[in-house]
Amino acid sequence: MIAKTPVPPYYAVIFTSLRTEVEEGYAEMAIRMVELASEQPGFLGVESARSGLGITVSYWASEEAIRNWKVNAEHRLAQRYGHEKWYSAFKTRVAKVERDYGTE
Amino acid sequence: MIAKTPVPPYYAVIFTSLRTEVEEGYAEMAIRMVELASEQPGFLGVESARSGLGITVSYWASEEAIRNWKVNAEHRLAQRYGHEKWYSAFKTRVAKVERDYGTE
Repeated sequence: MIAKTPVPPYYAVIFTSLRTEVEEGYAEMAIRMVELASEQPGFLGVESARSGLGITVSYWASEEAIRNWKVNAEHRLAQRYGHEKWYSAFKTRVAKVERDYGTE
Repeated sequence: MIAKTPVPPYYAVIFTSLRTEVEEGYAEMAIRMVELASEQPGFLGVESARSGLGITVSYWASEEAIRNWKVNAEHRLAQRYGHEKWYSAFKTRVAKVERDYGTE
């Protein structure tokens, strides 16, 4: 569940969100987006948690991989519905991981 | 709850963790560390969520601010107890936020 990322540098997309009360389609979309992201070139892993605030961090090999993922047609549709229905607020931050350490 | 961070660039420390079953002292430490971090020079905000996996992202104005926070005496004690008692696994990633966008 902690993503097994390579030695830095690599990239992180930190997506922080607050949900509306609209449940319709949300769980299916969330599962599908992880599946779809995992198939993209340059995808390195993803970590996700929600307790009121939701935080999903996806890891990528390059900025190009992030750009490609951002404009993926199915992902764009999910982004549109997210903005319209599922999220009352969100923030996306694109960051370059410079170093990491931990138990693995 | 979504951190109100300034225009990039700034830094993010992504702390991902899995808990042990040891509850003793954990909640108090978590609250105290947010309080203590907030008092540090260069602190910009923090976001936290846990559902099995825990993700805490703290935001900082500079690498120096992150280094100072890392070696803060009270924080070091919390890190030691975290490693020994509260976390079965964790990973810390230091990243430079290059761009962001969202609803605020």
